[in-house]
Amino acid sequence: MGKGGMSQGGSGEDGVEENMAAWLLGVNTLKIQPFHLPPLGPHDVRVKMKAVGICGSDVHYLKTLRCAHFVVREPMVIGHECAGIIAEVGAEVKHLVPGDRVALEPGISCWRCDLCKDGRYNLCPEMKFFATPPVHGSLANEVVHPADLCFKLPENVSLEEGAMCEPLSVGVHACRRANVGPETNVLVMGAGPIGLVTMMAARAFGAPRIVIVDVDDFRLSVAKDLGADEVIKVSIDIQDVDQDVAQIQKAMKAEVDVSLDCAGFNKTMSTALSATRAGGKVCLVGMGHNEMTVPLTPAAAREVDVIGVFRYKNTWPLCLEFIRSGKINVKPLITHRFGFSQKEVEDAFETSACGGNAIKVMFNL
Amino acid sequence: MGKGGMSQGGSGEDGVEENMAAWLLGVNTLKIQPFHLPPLGPHDVRVKMKAVGICGSDVHYLKTLRCAHFVVREPMVIGHECAGIIAEVGAEVKHLVPGDRVALEPGISCWRCDLCKDGRYNLCPEMKFFATPPVHGSLANEVVHPADLCFKLPENVSLEEGAMCEPLSVGVHACRRANVGPETNVLVMGAGPIGLVTMMAARAFGAPRIVIVDVDDFRLSVAKDLGADEVIKVSIDIQDVDQDVAQIQKAMKAEVDVSLDCAGFNKTMSTALSATRAGGKVCLVGMGHNEMTVPLTPAAAREVDVIGVFRYKNTWPLCLEFIRSGKINVKPLITHRFGFSQKEVEDAFETSACGGNAIKVMFNL
Amino acid sequence: MGKGGMSQGGSGEDGVEENMAAWLLGVNTLKIQPFHLPPLGPHDVRVKMKAVGICGSDVHYLKTLRCAHFVVREPMVIGHECAGIIAEVGAEVKHLVPGDRVALEPGISCWRCDLCKDGRYNLCPEMKFFATPPVHGSLANEVVHPADLCFKLPENVSLEEGAMCEPLSVGVHACRRANVGPETNVLVMGAGPIGLVTMMAARAFGAPRIVIVDVDDFRLSVAKDLGADEVIKVSIDIQDVDQDVAQIQKAMKAEVDVSLDCAGFNKTMSTALSATRAGGKVCLVGMGHNEMTVPLTPAAAREVDVIGVFRYKNTWPLCLEFIRSGKINVKPLITHRFGFSQKEVEDAFETSACGGNAIKVMFNL
Amino acid sequence: MGKGGMSQGGSGEDGVEENMAAWLLGVNTLKIQPFHLPPLGPHDVRVKMKAVGICGSDVHYLKTLRCAHFVVREPMVIGHECAGIIAEVGAEVKHLVPGDRVALEPGISCWRCDLCKDGRYNLCPEMKFFATPPVHGSLANEVVHPADLCFKLPENVSLEEGAMCEPLSVGVHACRRANVGPETNVLVMGAGPIGLVTMMAARAFGAPRIVIVDVDDFRLSVAKDLGADEVIKVSIDIQDVDQDVAQIQKAMKAEVDVSLDCAGFNKTMSTALSATRAGGKVCLVGMGHNEMTVPLTPAAAREVDVIGVFRYKNTWPLCLEFIRSGKINVKPLITHRFGFSQKEVEDAFETSACGGNAIKVMFNL
Repeated sequence: MGKGGMSQGGSGEDGVEENMAAWLLGVNTLKIQPFHLPPLGPHDVRVKMKAVGICGSDVHYLKTLRCAHFVVREPMVIGHECAGIIAEVGAEVKHLVPGDRVALEPGISCWRCDLCKDGRYNLCPEMKFFATPPVHGSLANEVVHPADLCFKLPENVSLEEGAMCEPLSVGVHACRRANVGPETNVLVMGAGPIGLVTMMAARAFGAPRIVIVDVDDFRLSVAKDLGADEVIKVSIDIQDVDQDVAQIQKAMKAEVDVSLDCAGFNKTMSTALSATRAGGKVCLVGMGHNEMTVPLTPAAAREVDVIGVFRYKNTWPLCLEFIRSGKINVKPLITHRFGFSQKEVEDAFETSACGGNAIKVMFNL
Repeated sequence: MGKGGMSQGGSGEDGVEENMAAWLLGVNTLKIQPFHLPPLGPHDVRVKMKAVGICGSDVHYLKTLRCAHFVVREPMVIGHECAGIIAEVGAEVKHLVPGDRVALEPGISCWRCDLCKDGRYNLCPEMKFFATPPVHGSLANEVVHPADLCFKLPENVSLEEGAMCEPLSVGVHACRRANVGPETNVLVMGAGPIGLVTMMAARAFGAPRIVIVDVDDFRLSVAKDLGADEVIKVSIDIQDVDQDVAQIQKAMKAEVDVSLDCAGFNKTMSTALSATRAGGKVCLVGMGHNEMTVPLTPAAAREVDVIGVFRYKNTWPLCLEFIRSGKINVKPLITHRFGFSQKEVEDAFETSACGGNAIKVMFNL
Repeated sequence: MGKGGMSQGGSGEDGVEENMAAWLLGVNTLKIQPFHLPPLGPHDVRVKMKAVGICGSDVHYLKTLRCAHFVVREPMVIGHECAGIIAEVGAEVKHLVPGDRVALEPGISCWRCDLCKDGRYNLCPEMKFFATPPVHGSLANEVVHPADLCFKLPENVSLEEGAMCEPLSVGVHACRRANVGPETNVLVMGAGPIGLVTMMAARAFGAPRIVIVDVDDFRLSVAKDLGADEVIKVSIDIQDVDQDVAQIQKAMKAEVDVSLDCAGFNKTMSTALSATRAGGKVCLVGMGHNEMTVPLTPAAAREVDVIGVFRYKNTWPLCLEFIRSGKINVKPLITHRFGFSQKEVEDAFETSACGGNAIKVMFNL
Repeated sequence: MGKGGMSQGGSGEDGVEENMAAWLLGVNTLKIQPFHLPPLGPHDVRVKMKAVGICGSDVHYLKTLRCAHFVVREPMVIGHECAGIIAEVGAEVKHLVPGDRVALEPGISCWRCDLCKDGRYNLCPEMKFFATPPVHGSLANEVVHPADLCFKLPENVSLEEGAMCEPLSVGVHACRRANVGPETNVLVMGAGPIGLVTMMAARAFGAPRIVIVDVDDFRLSVAKDLGADEVIKVSIDIQDVDQDVAQIQKAMKAEVDVSLDCAGFNKTMSTALSATRAGGKVCLVGMGHNEMTVPLTPAAAREVDVIGVFRYKNTWPLCLEFIRSGKINVKPLITHRFGFSQKEVEDAFETSACGGNAIKVMFNL
């Protein structure tokens, strides 16, 4: 790593090392380059990154420089699923000291808008979020972050598990919004990484029975290993919705109270809407095409509500408790590990992009 | 009608007058014919019908023998928006006496299923509902009905206003489900009868600002007269959604917190989903095509929830209070009145079916 | 018992066996005497009782003929925690057949009042509840009961466990009303039978950390065995509230989110109110003196809400699921068993009344 | 006003005037003295105060240097009900410009603690609140305050009405927490300033029927003028609770759904608990003695919940809308006006302290 004299982002007391980060410079172009950190504010901490996971959105940015309506217009440090060790704390920080191991919540909201003040800070229009342009991410040796967004890891929770709080938070937030609890029989559409963490979250919230649906045998076998009560393989043919629904309802052996669509296709959403009982909820977790063609009217006529989710809020403490207590075991999701060199960064993203048997690809820094 | 000295219009064995009702016998075929009432149970009342309104679903049944997934397979008495005068009370009825003027809630739920027990009786799969096949309706001289579904009219509320509690209940239930209150700026899509009662309900729940949208000038002028803050005329062209949304947001002078789609077309729902603020709600009140093609994903990504409504529950007392207090004035909605003869029944349905300037067509029996 | 060839224990005029029940005839006077059942309605079932537990209220009635504001004025069959086997089903009963093992929810509400219709049937003023005067209870060979209040036992759930659904329901209802979930650290005041089932319910709802407080070492040791994270022995001296609170907060290692007062004394409620965090809830489960002297103002000024509970609603399916899945094991609570003879009934009530190491006393019929 | 050369708190670019404030220096000792303002942060505004009301807590501090558990240990500027005109805006402030008329929300929360993040910022333990020691208040020529806590007044709302948002917020928050709406019949205990604003808020939330209770004829006559449906005069004798309850229930002509105790005495709370229907709520708004002796058990056994309130959150926009729309008219509450001189400040507090016919005493600066 660097040793240049003009370093500002150095991590040691001696300041001889330069802070390096993985910069997204163009389509399919990631380079490890120096990353100057902002000054440490009184409520900030400086964190040495130790574990950073790759998210589908990271891959999407790498391949297209876009994700949803966000566009990368300037070089940007990538990465937002992360955990590390506190290197320095701001003057007003009380609850953390250097050496503490922490998981980082990636979004900094404004706390001045109506949504923030009303407890829905995830919807803040001024949100500054790791690796959502134009905000830099956290695949770096070090980052500066607000201390209140750094959550100390319990002793028995590893840094990698800490980094997994980010994807797990999506599942936790979906379950909260859909009000999943010990009386909620849950259908999960899609057994990709988000489907799997959502399934695990639903179980941790007490769901007595979970059926998960996918088109891929391997994913379903992972879902089964991770605790799904029943897995159902389906086609991508929209004509099959009725028979899929019948199969799901049979497998559930009860009514579907909540469906969590973690894929976001016309077919998955149609299946979810039709399979859910009167008065139930369908939560749209996975984001696919903008326009969807779905049987919304008959669902509405049974008061099946469609619940949207965007990221998460206040989820880290609960994720850490779920992991600490063993209610959720995220370790099996980490299928590949890489170091933080130029080549390994490229390989890691390639591994994540191809899919195959990769679920979560993790950097160890 | 009636010629016997002591007759009260009863259907009992001793009654000298025969109870007559409007029977739906086939497509476009309504006949006034005798209607034998069931025996009066201990918790039932016998009610002389005095005001019965025509609902769009009544017209739909008349024209097609169908509505949603319900099909008329046997002759059925039509009508379900009604009020009348108590003629006789069952042995256990405490809160009503003959002579009381009452509005009737048309649906009898089972109170044994999970949904009933959980307070969502409108979703009861065993529901017996006036003029939803195979259950007879209430366009008749008399009906027998559970006393707890008959709500005494306040002194200053007329029988016609009592009958209007039924359509108004749809709006009240939608506002309750969407949590409309004094901080909720409301967009109403569609200014037909349901759009109008929903708008009036939103106002009564305290909505400070209401914008209503339709394709028809006359309907919008009625909406304006009934208290809309702004009315917006739009086309039926789906390409215009973006400009409609811009116009709505400008007219609202604030964010749209809740949209109530009382039309149920792709365009109205697309407009509602796009116009509503992050964290807001869209309530699908009007039921159109089964499949809808709408921008569900971007709405979900702003946590705009889609709320379904089916009929109503526990709405009569609130409707009567809204009417009694003057918070809602349903009288202007009653545009046409008819008596209860064969010819007038036919004319009334024809008037309701053609649309034009008819909002609510009412029978006075 | 039983000697007739075709008899099934029926109570009808033609039955050769007579249905016997435990009648409360006066203070400390219980007699097994014939009990004529009402006719079987179309939605009723006749159930052969197999397991009936003794509740504190049963003992209270036996000792004083009173409980809360209810007074026994006529001979009354006692008992309400029960499970049995279906002997006969009414004409309209679809989900049960003779031979099914069921747990019985003891209260029949009217389904005509506002509270019933609004989903709060436990508050129904017309409630007919086993062994709440003047309604007869279920410590009998057979009872007639509405089929929708009889819940089929999963295969791995015993009849005794079925009877335990009744006390467990109190805990489940309290946890629901206080919104206990996987983020709720719970304080339970009192380790008597209700404190124990409430603790178990809180755990099943996901409470990560539970501290339970009592004055009795034995009860606390049972609580510890049943899964309390920490048990704290306290005095009955009201002067000790502050030090008790300090001890509780230390033992919790976190803030107390919800306190469940299962004792209902000035001291337990004062402790609960003071120990609970700002924005938390105190649920008053145990009913003691009418007047309480407690620090209500400072609690209210921290927006600590006081939540009341009365019996339960819609709890049987969840209780059975908790028992079936092993999330709750009620078996250790059943400490004593008796048969259904005059002497054994007297002994059983005596055992239950003396307290000591008896938690739940159960009849096997 | 001042003219000293060393002014730092001046309002003009020329800095010739000195900023003066009313300092609480000791028991019964208020002095107008210079008040140096902190530097203007990027998200702050400087506001010229124009209207400041006197609250009961201000008087309490003046008389005792204490209020609840807060103690004045250093000289402190008093006052927190206020409105003014923007004099200067920080670099990042977008929604305000000099000359804008604004009402000020007095509390600055930390936005880093769990309660802030969860949308309950009023419970923030780090709250900095005008005139709650050791934080200075706003009875001054000018103050510096976060821009997001300054709410622009609608054209038809005066600065005095803007200042009234603060007491009105207490009523609004209580009604929100107790879920008052168009179906909620409300009992208000106490017709002092907080009782009156709470009553007006309940009406604005749609309460169809409001009964208010006090011991004082004048207060009750004001309540009647301000829109109470019925006023009831009671004694302070706790023995009269039962007859008071009977009188209240008769006057309500319906069940009491929510009681708002704006006095906080044993008697008012006992009355509220007993008068409220099963399943209703009692909100403790007024704060009296720490210990209360009240019939909590029978209330809990009817699932009457006791809801606490502390200040308010997110209430200014709604208060301004209520005032703008005329749903609430706070003007009649302002009974006395004073200027901002040493003598007038003393007189104003004296007027407020004596009670009598003073409701709200207002400074015009």
